[in-house]
Amino acid sequence: MTNQQTDNSPTVGDIGEQGILNEILPLLDAKDAGLGPGDDAGALRVAGGEVVVSVDTIVQDQDFRLVWPSGHEHAAYDIGWKSIAQNVSDINAMGGVPTGAVISLSMPAEVSLAWAKEFASGIAAAISSLGAARLAILGGDLSRSSEISVTTTVLGECEYGKILRTGAKPGDRLAVAGRLGAAGAGLALLEGKHEATTWSRAVLRLADAQCKPTPPLESGPRAAQSGAHAMMDISDGLVRDAGRLAKASRVSIKLDKSALEVFAHRLEPAAKLLDFDPMQWVLHGGEDFGLLACFPTGVEIPEEFSVVGEVVPLTGRRSNVFLNGKQLDYRSGFDHFG
Amino acid sequence: MTNQQTDNSPTVGDIGEQGILNEILPLLDAKDAGLGPGDDAGALRVAGGEVVVSVDTIVQDQDFRLVWPSGHEHAAYDIGWKSIAQNVSDINAMGGVPTGAVISLSMPAEVSLAWAKEFASGIAAAISSLGAARLAILGGDLSRSSEISVTTTVLGECEYGKILRTGAKPGDRLAVAGRLGAAGAGLALLEGKHEATTWSRAVLRLADAQCKPTPPLESGPRAAQSGAHAMMDISDGLVRDAGRLAKASRVSIKLDKSALEVFAHRLEPAAKLLDFDPMQWVLHGGEDFGLLACFPTGVEIPEEFSVVGEVVPLTGRRSNVFLNGKQLDYRSGFDHFG
Repeated sequence: MTNQQTDNSPTVGDIGEQGILNEILPLLDAKDAGLGPGDDAGALRVAGGEVVVSVDTIVQDQDFRLVWPSGHEHAAYDIGWKSIAQNVSDINAMGGVPTGAVISLSMPAEVSLAWAKEFASGIAAAISSLGAARLAILGGDLSRSSEISVTTTVLGECEYGKILRTGAKPGDRLAVAGRLGAAGAGLALLEGKHEATTWSRAVLRLADAQCKPTPPLESGPRAAQSGAHAMMDISDGLVRDAGRLAKASRVSIKLDKSALEVFAHRLEPAAKLLDFDPMQWVLHGGEDFGLLACFPTGVEIPEEFSVVGEVVPLTGRRSNVFLNGKQLDYRSGFDHFG
Repeated sequence: MTNQQTDNSPTVGDIGEQGILNEILPLLDAKDAGLGPGDDAGALRVAGGEVVVSVDTIVQDQDFRLVWPSGHEHAAYDIGWKSIAQNVSDINAMGGVPTGAVISLSMPAEVSLAWAKEFASGIAAAISSLGAARLAILGGDLSRSSEISVTTTVLGECEYGKILRTGAKPGDRLAVAGRLGAAGAGLALLEGKHEATTWSRAVLRLADAQCKPTPPLESGPRAAQSGAHAMMDISDGLVRDAGRLAKASRVSIKLDKSALEVFAHRLEPAAKLLDFDPMQWVLHGGEDFGLLACFPTGVEIPEEFSVVGEVVPLTGRRSNVFLNGKQLDYRSGFDHFG
């Protein structure tokens, strides 16, 4: 496997489970949030009377490739980063702050120790760079498998209450925080035939959006504090996720295309290279892990949110998503098993 | 893959992610413990100021085989059961009660829907049969992969305080609750050449101990309430885990062979069939998920615990485990990458 085994690094099979832990745990800075690895279970101090919890798995050749068709290598550091990013995003989307995590890493015995350490460094970097200052690693598990697979569980607290998908009301303004379409454009670049070695810096930044996403942490709690009625993160594309929110809230949603143009404009470097309509990435690209929130009229929307539409009453029995009056099929899009 | 695809059942690839969830979620009885699946994160109400949390992954052909060399099939039901059993065991080993779980299931698209439903039934059955009455399924994740892999994260509460590995004191009595060696004997049977179809009921029960372990829930909190100094579950074998506890507490441990004979006696059906010394399973067999606890003198040890040794001071610089005065190498034994 390319980039897993380097000449001077022992494999994880060479040094065994305890050996790996001895190398990795020092990279995952312990925080005084409870009890970290070493016992049967970790422990997390909880201020409120509730914890929120989310789990996600990323699997080699399904959710990432070690080497993409474009030749771009998905660094172990970025895989560690993404495993944290997509889960803290789920906590952010509830209006919460991530406070603890456990991580399970499965990998073949031939993976190099250097790879495993880089992976752990990516975890630590995501925690500090994304602003998850309270997030403590509470424990984990190492397993052997035929492909690399990472399951991350993150716990959090919602100081301003949990914001669900079910609370959207007709009249609410629909707003997004974070990027739209950047990770989708990045995926198209990574899976495309244009050699990564020829990419401009602007193009490379879009590929990075896929490999190393940056969810807008702090915007979730801020939206909750502002009185958002409903919220979720955009992991499977704006249209699909807006449709889910609409369905959960029994409303319909109208998107305003002109408000989305600014996001499409930022994708021009990739759109030109691939001769593709960038608005399709804005509407259907996933994994930016931005926020989609519904704010009642009269509240001040936090400045990092852009209004991109409104919540309207159901017209028939089913929730719909409209773009400038035209109905979209929000049920299409990515399905792990479809 | 044997037993994953049956003639009349669609595959998980046929029905897609939402289709699988629609079939599985009704099998996982929701409890009024917080917020279940449906939003970005689940939520769990927490009585105390702390949650304990543990994660474990089991991987096809590493931790279980769909069909063992003996011909015994590892039912999907049992795989669901084991994924719960080994994690509630970790909470039990802290002296806690499991209150919430998230489950991530990765599988090939060719797996039958019937398999996935049986897996979910095994989860539900373990929760009710093992006595984890408060355990609520808070969420999960479905991913596609080339092999079946299950990562379970369980949260819990420790009403009587957390019991760690570090608290053992010279003079403590060492006691175990639950089975010793049964899952190890079962593994030897499953991996052996004796056809499963020829097994007696007594032999089959030992194979079941490996496929469908039964950790002694409630014994953990009871040990904590009784004042246990230290505790852990026995997942990698008595000697190895006693060594870990000794090392964490900076003590040595003396095991009493005569006290272990009663456990060995129960393994006779398998020992005769395989012509093997059953004491080896008692000392080194893992995955029974029994408890190993250290009780100070003077406290009443809960009746389901059997005293099997004592805690003694360090004689040199390193912790040791002794059996009737003979030093054992507790560092040998199972390693995922060894």
